[in-house]
Amino acid sequence: MGKGGMSVDDDHGEEQNLAAWLVAINTLKIQPFNLPPLGPHDVRVRMKAVGICGSDVHYLKTLRCAHFVVEEPMVIGHECAGIIEEVGSEVKALVPGDRVAIEPGISCWRCDHCKQGRYNLCPDMKFFATPPVHGSLANQIVHPADLCFKLPDNVSLEEGAMCEPLSVGVHACRRAEIGPETKVLIMGAGPIGLVTMLAARAFGAPRIVIVDVDDHRLSVAKSLGADDIVKVSTNSQACIFDSLVEVDVIGIFRYKNTWPLCLEFLRSGKIDVKPLITHRYGFSQKEVEEAFETSAAGGNAIKVMFNL
Amino acid sequence: MGKGGMSVDDDHGEEQNLAAWLVAINTLKIQPFNLPPLGPHDVRVRMKAVGICGSDVHYLKTLRCAHFVVEEPMVIGHECAGIIEEVGSEVKALVPGDRVAIEPGISCWRCDHCKQGRYNLCPDMKFFATPPVHGSLANQIVHPADLCFKLPDNVSLEEGAMCEPLSVGVHACRRAEIGPETKVLIMGAGPIGLVTMLAARAFGAPRIVIVDVDDHRLSVAKSLGADDIVKVSTNSQACIFDSLVEVDVIGIFRYKNTWPLCLEFLRSGKIDVKPLITHRYGFSQKEVEEAFETSAAGGNAIKVMFNL
Amino acid sequence: MGKGGMSVDDDHGEEQNLAAWLVAINTLKIQPFNLPPLGPHDVRVRMKAVGICGSDVHYLKTLRCAHFVVEEPMVIGHECAGIIEEVGSEVKALVPGDRVAIEPGISCWRCDHCKQGRYNLCPDMKFFATPPVHGSLANQIVHPADLCFKLPDNVSLEEGAMCEPLSVGVHACRRAEIGPETKVLIMGAGPIGLVTMLAARAFGAPRIVIVDVDDHRLSVAKSLGADDIVKVSTNSQACIFDSLVEVDVIGIFRYKNTWPLCLEFLRSGKIDVKPLITHRYGFSQKEVEEAFETSAAGGNAIKVMFNL
Amino acid sequence: MGKGGMSVDDDHGEEQNLAAWLVAINTLKIQPFNLPPLGPHDVRVRMKAVGICGSDVHYLKTLRCAHFVVEEPMVIGHECAGIIEEVGSEVKALVPGDRVAIEPGISCWRCDHCKQGRYNLCPDMKFFATPPVHGSLANQIVHPADLCFKLPDNVSLEEGAMCEPLSVGVHACRRAEIGPETKVLIMGAGPIGLVTMLAARAFGAPRIVIVDVDDHRLSVAKSLGADDIVKVSTNSQACIFDSLVEVDVIGIFRYKNTWPLCLEFLRSGKIDVKPLITHRYGFSQKEVEEAFETSAAGGNAIKVMFNL
Repeated sequence: MGKGGMSVDDDHGEEQNLAAWLVAINTLKIQPFNLPPLGPHDVRVRMKAVGICGSDVHYLKTLRCAHFVVEEPMVIGHECAGIIEEVGSEVKALVPGDRVAIEPGISCWRCDHCKQGRYNLCPDMKFFATPPVHGSLANQIVHPADLCFKLPDNVSLEEGAMCEPLSVGVHACRRAEIGPETKVLIMGAGPIGLVTMLAARAFGAPRIVIVDVDDHRLSVAKSLGADDIVKVSTNSQACIFDSLVEVDVIGIFRYKNTWPLCLEFLRSGKIDVKPLITHRYGFSQKEVEEAFETSAAGGNAIKVMFNL
Repeated sequence: MGKGGMSVDDDHGEEQNLAAWLVAINTLKIQPFNLPPLGPHDVRVRMKAVGICGSDVHYLKTLRCAHFVVEEPMVIGHECAGIIEEVGSEVKALVPGDRVAIEPGISCWRCDHCKQGRYNLCPDMKFFATPPVHGSLANQIVHPADLCFKLPDNVSLEEGAMCEPLSVGVHACRRAEIGPETKVLIMGAGPIGLVTMLAARAFGAPRIVIVDVDDHRLSVAKSLGADDIVKVSTNSQACIFDSLVEVDVIGIFRYKNTWPLCLEFLRSGKIDVKPLITHRYGFSQKEVEEAFETSAAGGNAIKVMFNL
Repeated sequence: MGKGGMSVDDDHGEEQNLAAWLVAINTLKIQPFNLPPLGPHDVRVRMKAVGICGSDVHYLKTLRCAHFVVEEPMVIGHECAGIIEEVGSEVKALVPGDRVAIEPGISCWRCDHCKQGRYNLCPDMKFFATPPVHGSLANQIVHPADLCFKLPDNVSLEEGAMCEPLSVGVHACRRAEIGPETKVLIMGAGPIGLVTMLAARAFGAPRIVIVDVDDHRLSVAKSLGADDIVKVSTNSQACIFDSLVEVDVIGIFRYKNTWPLCLEFLRSGKIDVKPLITHRYGFSQKEVEEAFETSAAGGNAIKVMFNL
Repeated sequence: MGKGGMSVDDDHGEEQNLAAWLVAINTLKIQPFNLPPLGPHDVRVRMKAVGICGSDVHYLKTLRCAHFVVEEPMVIGHECAGIIEEVGSEVKALVPGDRVAIEPGISCWRCDHCKQGRYNLCPDMKFFATPPVHGSLANQIVHPADLCFKLPDNVSLEEGAMCEPLSVGVHACRRAEIGPETKVLIMGAGPIGLVTMLAARAFGAPRIVIVDVDDHRLSVAKSLGADDIVKVSTNSQACIFDSLVEVDVIGIFRYKNTWPLCLEFLRSGKIDVKPLITHRYGFSQKEVEEAFETSAAGGNAIKVMFNL
């Protein structure tokens, strides 16, 4: 690393851009992270809030997630928000100082999926912290401007970072066409189950029941607005569809075009994600390690957030 | 009238069933109304609340509405709710004493429209107060049980009667696929414009602007929750679509399957129709005449309601 | 009208209406079948062609199908076409002598499913040969006129009877939104797999591959127009979806509103179901037994048809 | 690479790239056309077939079309196909010698329309021969590789050029959800009416009626497969919707993602566009002038095609 790329040092005096690198199983190291050059449609963003996702923990524990394998040291993290530091020559919608929530995936826009409006399925997607693409738990990153969404004044940077998990729930609700006539049953009251519940409510679902094996999670779901909670001792999926006919099972993968709607839900107060943020850490070697331990332990942790 | 039909007198002792008959232009008369026999799937309902619709006023003034012409004396009224007095032999979901909101149209269920889920377009529809079918501004009516929807405990009979105009707004919002990402512009702040605004909000519309030529109506719209109001001095439709492309114009005709959703909106408080009821009258000859005059005059009247 | 129902004898001179009754496991008996009275919207139809369905065979072998149990002797058969003999007083679209294909299920038109355009899901559906409802393998039946569809001149009564299984394929293609951009994979080349293939082609599918464990069935599929066939030695479903994302699994149950489209496909020649009819039998006790044996044996039988 | 752009001369020896420039009202001049540099995702294409569109004629007669105004000399033409001469460094799907049909519009992929799958509505669309963007009636052009679609072996270059007008019909049929149950009425039997008819048939429309004021056009429509033709003496739109309810009017603008389907329709023979090509011209100053005169005159000209 050096000649091959433009380091932040070169551009910005003495500051060294640091990031949390996944270097081996169970081993994260804060180390320098050279940024790529700023393209005409890119922005440079100073990260302020980064959340830990289950996939981040999974990579840390196994160096794998689904069919992705970490083969080189990789910067981790993809739920994030920050402040614009610099904008490329063609960027018109953002200026330095703007607070933005960041959509983490860069799609190719040349394949059929992209052209047909399903960019989330792009086979050439470059997605934060999905090998070999680096993530965003760093002081600064460079990213396309059109994937950085300006925060409304009454939405915090932490809430901005929460747009990423919330997007999963929003995408699910869109695909399932949730509305004021849809009764919703959610299997699992983890972070994704909870954001899906919040999204379903915002889409108008009149009745939401949530199922889990864990009493604490169910009590959180209830406090966040579930109409009813159901504790199960084992996987109850088998019996769910027993007497139904013409049921449609709709798959979802990540999300697309969700940030503007998430921000509108947060701005208007239709969704409040703040109660999901249960733990906060700074960005030191020690705190990064503790934060991931907290997230991995489960317990009463829902969302663990870094404040950089 | 007499031998040809079973009169209520025969069945129910001394009580005479009275109704408001449209007998000539500008002439309504309260006169006896013989009920048809109660079929196995029918119920007999004592009317408690009946609203006046613009089409009722139009029939009164002209004996016509669209291509329908009143050629025989006709009982008027179609926005109604009441209390079940008697149920047919096959009726299982209702019992005497139940408070119900009434859907006014009986479709054939044998034509393609009905079978394909568009019963509102049934060419053989028998619709209250659409000649030659009698309406429901009467002490009692007989109606199919499946068109009588039980009111939740916290929904009044007047609110029940309001389900009919509200249904027009709900059907429009369904057809237009209103949701949390739809910005809504409503042309006209009359009763239908207002219920459409309330429905659009309940479907999640984040921003609703309403346009009218009348200051009072616009102030009502604003007080009922419009995000913005626009006064125009003339028909502004011409300029609306000027710079848009791939706009879809979606026609609507009446409604279908709307009562359960209307009642859920009223029960949950997502919609409050009570402010729309501006005037109330009893069911005497004099009050019926006054009520229609009030409705026809416009002014600050939105919905004029009979309490029977 | 004698005791126990109106017999055909009473109405129609000396003719006795006979039907194939399922009276015990593996036991079908041709016995008299009293018809119900002809309602104003009903027609009486002389059956001319009745096909055997896998469910008919299943009932014969086990007296059960899904959660339905045959507890009383039941007339079997539901894939049928015939000639109108008599029409009810309100029937306008049909006259005696009309050749008709018959849709076998009578739905209630009062439940939410019926009203919302999904009458195939009606919980009160009365469906031919689904206990306790009698079927149509009989000389004559009485049925609602709106479920009897006049055959185009160039469509035979046997083809009319084939509308029933073809409807399953048509409904599947509609629900799956098959069109000129849909590549289709069909798992199983039995009668339903084959009619689904024919329907998919008529809906414009540019490429259809069909999978089965049986060489003969696959060769039939190929001769009927499959673009490719794949022989598998075991259930291959597990691997199908392995690398796909956002796959939707769309359930189907029977069909709705399919007869007009089936008849148009047959009339225009877009679909030819005649090659599916591999065996024909008359309506004697012996032939009924043989026909069901042939159908149950599988082998090279696809559709076994009675000519009455 | 000299001043003002890279000329073809520099790269390709003695050959001069010529194009048909619209320089004034009614004035087209064949003059040199400097190509832009070849980007990593671009290809250089030698044009072989270019059709004349009504908009080309309109620009020639008025220097305007809709709100677009030609203010600088502009190369005309946008219905085209050719042969790949050179590919950019990142192009993998095409090689020199490939015959390709060309989609003329380059969208931004950063705006909401693009991201949401409606790239045809992109406000920053760069579209051939829509000022200030040059068109494709030239010896060679440079274009993004993902907008160049390889022709099947049995599809000619002229048919490839016809994908552009055919795309308008295909997009209309998709938006209107044409299928085997859709009866189609087409107002106008010009080139776009005719390709829409061909597309509707390929989408399975069972019955297509076409309306025009011109006998010759109607006879062409009939010969191309219209089920019925209707001659009108004046605009008949007013009466069309008179007795219909819940009609949806669906706007369309250009097309999106249509080339693969057009090519499949041409390959499979579901659509034959060859009869639409009524006139052919070479690429000399004189022939270009004659070709546009022929197209402008109407008469029996449907599609006028250049062979370069």
